[in-house]
Amino acid sequence: MNINSNFDGGNIECLVCDRANNIQLKIKQDSNTGFLQWFYFRLSEAKNQSCTIKIVNAGECSYVKGWQGYRAVASYDKREWFRVDTEYKDGVLHIKHQPQHDSVYYAYFAPYPLDRHAGLIARMQTHLLVQHQIPGQSLDGRDMDLLVVGEPADNKKPFWVIGRQHPGETMAEWWMEGFLNRLTDMNDAVVKTLLEKTVFYVVPNMNPDGSFRGHLRTNAAGANLNREWLDASAERSPEVLCVREKMHETGVAFCLDVHGDEALPYNFIAGAEGIPDWNEQRLALQNDYKNALQRANPDFQTKIGYPIAAPGKGNLTMCTNYTAQTFSCLSMTLEMPFKDNANAPDDVAGWSPERCQKLGASSLDAMYAVIDQVC
Amino acid sequence: MNINSNFDGGNIECLVCDRANNIQLKIKQDSNTGFLQWFYFRLSEAKNQSCTIKIVNAGECSYVKGWQGYRAVASYDKREWFRVDTEYKDGVLHIKHQPQHDSVYYAYFAPYPLDRHAGLIARMQTHLLVQHQIPGQSLDGRDMDLLVVGEPADNKKPFWVIGRQHPGETMAEWWMEGFLNRLTDMNDAVVKTLLEKTVFYVVPNMNPDGSFRGHLRTNAAGANLNREWLDASAERSPEVLCVREKMHETGVAFCLDVHGDEALPYNFIAGAEGIPDWNEQRLALQNDYKNALQRANPDFQTKIGYPIAAPGKGNLTMCTNYTAQTFSCLSMTLEMPFKDNANAPDDVAGWSPERCQKLGASSLDAMYAVIDQVC
Amino acid sequence: MNINSNFDGGNIECLVCDRANNIQLKIKQDSNTGFLQWFYFRLSEAKNQSCTIKIVNAGECSYVKGWQGYRAVASYDKREWFRVDTEYKDGVLHIKHQPQHDSVYYAYFAPYPLDRHAGLIARMQTHLLVQHQIPGQSLDGRDMDLLVVGEPADNKKPFWVIGRQHPGETMAEWWMEGFLNRLTDMNDAVVKTLLEKTVFYVVPNMNPDGSFRGHLRTNAAGANLNREWLDASAERSPEVLCVREKMHETGVAFCLDVHGDEALPYNFIAGAEGIPDWNEQRLALQNDYKNALQRANPDFQTKIGYPIAAPGKGNLTMCTNYTAQTFSCLSMTLEMPFKDNANAPDDVAGWSPERCQKLGASSLDAMYAVIDQVC
Amino acid sequence: MNINSNFDGGNIECLVCDRANNIQLKIKQDSNTGFLQWFYFRLSEAKNQSCTIKIVNAGECSYVKGWQGYRAVASYDKREWFRVDTEYKDGVLHIKHQPQHDSVYYAYFAPYPLDRHAGLIARMQTHLLVQHQIPGQSLDGRDMDLLVVGEPADNKKPFWVIGRQHPGETMAEWWMEGFLNRLTDMNDAVVKTLLEKTVFYVVPNMNPDGSFRGHLRTNAAGANLNREWLDASAERSPEVLCVREKMHETGVAFCLDVHGDEALPYNFIAGAEGIPDWNEQRLALQNDYKNALQRANPDFQTKIGYPIAAPGKGNLTMCTNYTAQTFSCLSMTLEMPFKDNANAPDDVAGWSPERCQKLGASSLDAMYAVIDQVC
Repeated sequence: MNINSNFDGGNIECLVCDRANNIQLKIKQDSNTGFLQWFYFRLSEAKNQSCTIKIVNAGECSYVKGWQGYRAVASYDKREWFRVDTEYKDGVLHIKHQPQHDSVYYAYFAPYPLDRHAGLIARMQTHLLVQHQIPGQSLDGRDMDLLVVGEPADNKKPFWVIGRQHPGETMAEWWMEGFLNRLTDMNDAVVKTLLEKTVFYVVPNMNPDGSFRGHLRTNAAGANLNREWLDASAERSPEVLCVREKMHETGVAFCLDVHGDEALPYNFIAGAEGIPDWNEQRLALQNDYKNALQRANPDFQTKIGYPIAAPGKGNLTMCTNYTAQTFSCLSMTLEMPFKDNANAPDDVAGWSPERCQKLGASSLDAMYAVIDQVC
Repeated sequence: MNINSNFDGGNIECLVCDRANNIQLKIKQDSNTGFLQWFYFRLSEAKNQSCTIKIVNAGECSYVKGWQGYRAVASYDKREWFRVDTEYKDGVLHIKHQPQHDSVYYAYFAPYPLDRHAGLIARMQTHLLVQHQIPGQSLDGRDMDLLVVGEPADNKKPFWVIGRQHPGETMAEWWMEGFLNRLTDMNDAVVKTLLEKTVFYVVPNMNPDGSFRGHLRTNAAGANLNREWLDASAERSPEVLCVREKMHETGVAFCLDVHGDEALPYNFIAGAEGIPDWNEQRLALQNDYKNALQRANPDFQTKIGYPIAAPGKGNLTMCTNYTAQTFSCLSMTLEMPFKDNANAPDDVAGWSPERCQKLGASSLDAMYAVIDQVC
Repeated sequence: MNINSNFDGGNIECLVCDRANNIQLKIKQDSNTGFLQWFYFRLSEAKNQSCTIKIVNAGECSYVKGWQGYRAVASYDKREWFRVDTEYKDGVLHIKHQPQHDSVYYAYFAPYPLDRHAGLIARMQTHLLVQHQIPGQSLDGRDMDLLVVGEPADNKKPFWVIGRQHPGETMAEWWMEGFLNRLTDMNDAVVKTLLEKTVFYVVPNMNPDGSFRGHLRTNAAGANLNREWLDASAERSPEVLCVREKMHETGVAFCLDVHGDEALPYNFIAGAEGIPDWNEQRLALQNDYKNALQRANPDFQTKIGYPIAAPGKGNLTMCTNYTAQTFSCLSMTLEMPFKDNANAPDDVAGWSPERCQKLGASSLDAMYAVIDQVC
Repeated sequence: MNINSNFDGGNIECLVCDRANNIQLKIKQDSNTGFLQWFYFRLSEAKNQSCTIKIVNAGECSYVKGWQGYRAVASYDKREWFRVDTEYKDGVLHIKHQPQHDSVYYAYFAPYPLDRHAGLIARMQTHLLVQHQIPGQSLDGRDMDLLVVGEPADNKKPFWVIGRQHPGETMAEWWMEGFLNRLTDMNDAVVKTLLEKTVFYVVPNMNPDGSFRGHLRTNAAGANLNREWLDASAERSPEVLCVREKMHETGVAFCLDVHGDEALPYNFIAGAEGIPDWNEQRLALQNDYKNALQRANPDFQTKIGYPIAAPGKGNLTMCTNYTAQTFSCLSMTLEMPFKDNANAPDDVAGWSPERCQKLGASSLDAMYAVIDQVC
């Protein structure tokens, strides 16, 4: 038997793996921080054995509530990911599975490798309406990839869509794939109409270093990028710094920051209610967007979500609050589940890459619904 | 040089084809009727020659207005269809084109062959939620293919969707492909939600005989099926008879009949305003559907369409009026252009198979929007 | 329950189909002849029923030996064809199968529809090195499709490859697909080298009328095309006449005529040993070709085949003998099984479209092996 | 303008990149060695600019002869790789190219990323006849992936095929893809026949660490793995050690080691002529293999190659000599060009991934040709 995580996005430490029914593993912390919860590894040479994989430090993870009702994902071919029996008790996560092939990958959620990211960027940039820009580099020296979709013009509204500030929230980049595929489909009338009025600025992966390192929440320096928007710095958060600068250059009429939530088994939006300049009109517009998204894709819902920040108490170091306050624009955080959508569970796949892609595509319907109200 | 139309859906008669700049052709009438306008043929051995193809009886076609602003479609590989220069003057349609390969197909609209139809049915019926039924046979003895999508249950609403009563309106079956592909995608939350409340009865091709014969509007007996709903008969319109019977068996909560219009360069809906039992509530519901469809797909519009029938003057021999009156349901005719959507023209492809498919898929959004009002 | 064969290539007559365990069918004769053996039909509404399909006139078929060890092919999706239990006794062929879906197609061999043929031709002719010519028309008025692959030049050898003179031998056109796909792959070094020395003239389907009509062996007039090469006529065999004429125009350095054999469960070659001008050198060359093909593809063998014609007794009305004698070239008939290759049986698929395609591709290795000997 | 190589397999150092016509770069040495020649980087924000990229230390590279007649490969979409104008003079390699899109990748040869490797292994191992084993780990802790194809049995001959000991020779892994795809195609009669007599042990990538690090020739410790076969050690060359051990376990009847050559524009085989136990019979067998390969794929040739080692002077630290001597088996090194096959040049792509794949597939024909002689 053999456990390995020495690949793009891998994260695990093997403590014991001599018997299939007692494999003991530990999730490693994000570099320079106490965050941990993302895991991704390959188990080999355990075909047809009844395996019990114990993640012994699950109780020390960042979001212990995330383990309630959670089931790990697995794949033999790195294409199709399915859920396997998982139970959390006494601080240990137990994954029980009898692999049908020699090797099987397990992960917290279907991984989205940097090589696939690079392929997505490369493919997209050959599209007639797409520009590829590099606003800056990450701490480890990776290019920050920005796709500009649509022909910029003075009267067009700048729409910003960013994802994966938290690198372990890979659903954000699956979402991006669905979003970008539709956004570049010139047979799609919603897209065609939208691009007459808007230009899209899309950063599919805000945190390539954390993605590669197998982090849950931080970049190479241990910075939670979604707490850096007020004081982004070249030393600690150049990823945010360069994107923020570009935003100030283009202006922002709309901003969506795409995330995953460890605990809640729902798709929901967290708004900017806590910013100083919040008002009824903004709330109405935000609700219009949410309702339009729910209409377009019932996997999205509006009942369950985070508690709403008290007036003026919003944390302005977060992208959504920062941009909402700074640009007086509609700005929101989209959260997708690591688990499943409890309103429409899928026993085999749970919340899956395919459903992320659909939700990404549907978001264009919601943007289209509010385009004339956004300014 | 060589002209041939002896294949599924082909229609042309070659009068003169000895010189590229003066190819003279004639469209054949639908069997046993005076309808004619559909053409579909292959020109061979004219590579790199500047061809002028004259359809000399264009002025005698059923919808002469259809030639205004019309451009014929062409394809080298039978996959990609593009528009070519076309001009109507003095009763003759002139198609001007310099083929880049030895053979090129020209047609009134991108053809949808019976073999593709059979493949669609065959593929769909292997889906877990799909049944394939044969309510009857056409006059020429072809099976009428009915797909039932969703698990029938007492509390579910029967949704009927039929297309291609007029066989030359091939856009209707391209629409069906987009519609059915989405309807069987279990990662689509709109579909999943819809199928909890409805069962779909889908007849992708109401007129297989006319399709094969290269007809514009009629079946093998020369019957315009969309004038047969009141008096369908085994002798003249068994295609309608067997479907109508099945409708009476299942009931109808919603009916959509998919068509193409020769003249108007728009997508629009023709309602059942002229039936005896029309009322304000039905109008409101019909408008809700139309607005939802426009929201979901701006290639659809609500401004331009057919004149609305005066109260009580609706022609009950048509599917939409017949079903609206008989089943007291929301029933509509969807019309797509042979030309293009003038609100969002595509110079290369015009109104195309791809856009038909998108509109078919979007129709599920509109159905979802009204599902709770439909009864 | 419902039986239908009213489609391209379909052939069956339904006698009784009221009970699944006693479906009685009859194969129809080729028009104007006594040949019969090809069947192709769809059974619907028999899902999960244990069906026994009896072809009651199997004993009157052209090659009764073909039923020994034969298993019918079936498909739900028209893509994947698999074998089903089949037994011949007392003059009746019994097909036993419990369909897993509402509709299932059964056939003598995996059908190759005209629409797929048209798509193959259309796709091929867009290739830089391919010309599409129409040497003539069939009796029913279909174009005879000839693909010329490679740039003609004086010093190049004309290679002729034709198939499906007998339309029910659909394996011939599956073979053509594999052959043509490889022949147009410019990354293939064998092809690239071969095309420096040869030009290919390929007729993938010599008998489109018989194909469409669901014939076993003849064209629309009831002519067995492979007995028409000496006296081809516009009235009875224009399909052969126009191709033969083209051959005389180009000359023939090599000719392969692709067929299927009802009885023998092997791939083999029938040569031109019986022609007046046969000699040792020609035998040696023919053997070189056969050995090279066996090396390239062990599904081909040289032990079992037809009895060799006595010297001078060859039937010159057949393509192989006619061309061998007339053009003094290497000319052969390739026979593939309807059943399976008994040397390497595949229990699921038997001899299949995929294996036909492989054998077609491998034939280029054999041609390459003898290219310098051919003249 | 922006140059980046911080990704899997990337290698470049940017000296100057402020003007398109004078971009100055430097190739980095393999860790802990003086080897250098592999480069792979992305240039961004130079769309439509006439770029001159100068690799200023080209004259210090390991194989300066490799630059004569060499053209660099480029890709916009990471799928299609094409050649660009390249000139070597005065110790500097000049790549001249005007990119048509915002970003373009340049490389020494089409890269083969580890993520694609992992996908290949994952996909292959789900095949019924394939086992995936992990004989050991690389120095950096990556799994060594071994695929066992075919059911092991006492009377079967063990065929070993390994590649990419030199990680910059990415053609070796493209070759592997073609080889493995064919080797798992159960419709292929050569494969089916071969697997009755052999079991394949395939290591598609012997040097994952060097691959990831963007090395030309060595592993993480700077070891040239193809000089480690005599004294492989856990400290310096565990990659060889674990594979060699497995070879001793299985025995070796045939061994092929797949490489690329920087200088010679040909595909050729380097044999084991220099080993102590060489003899005429072995030479004959080796020639049989070479001739069979040339027959199967004329992109392979036998005229040009390395000088043949004098009797007894072979370097036994190399895989081919070590295995030939140790296992008394047919063992060879296959070399493919970085440039092109000068006998059949392709101006657009040069020697390409597609042609590597074809040569990999063709190698099975050669193995099949000698299977009964190998022991």
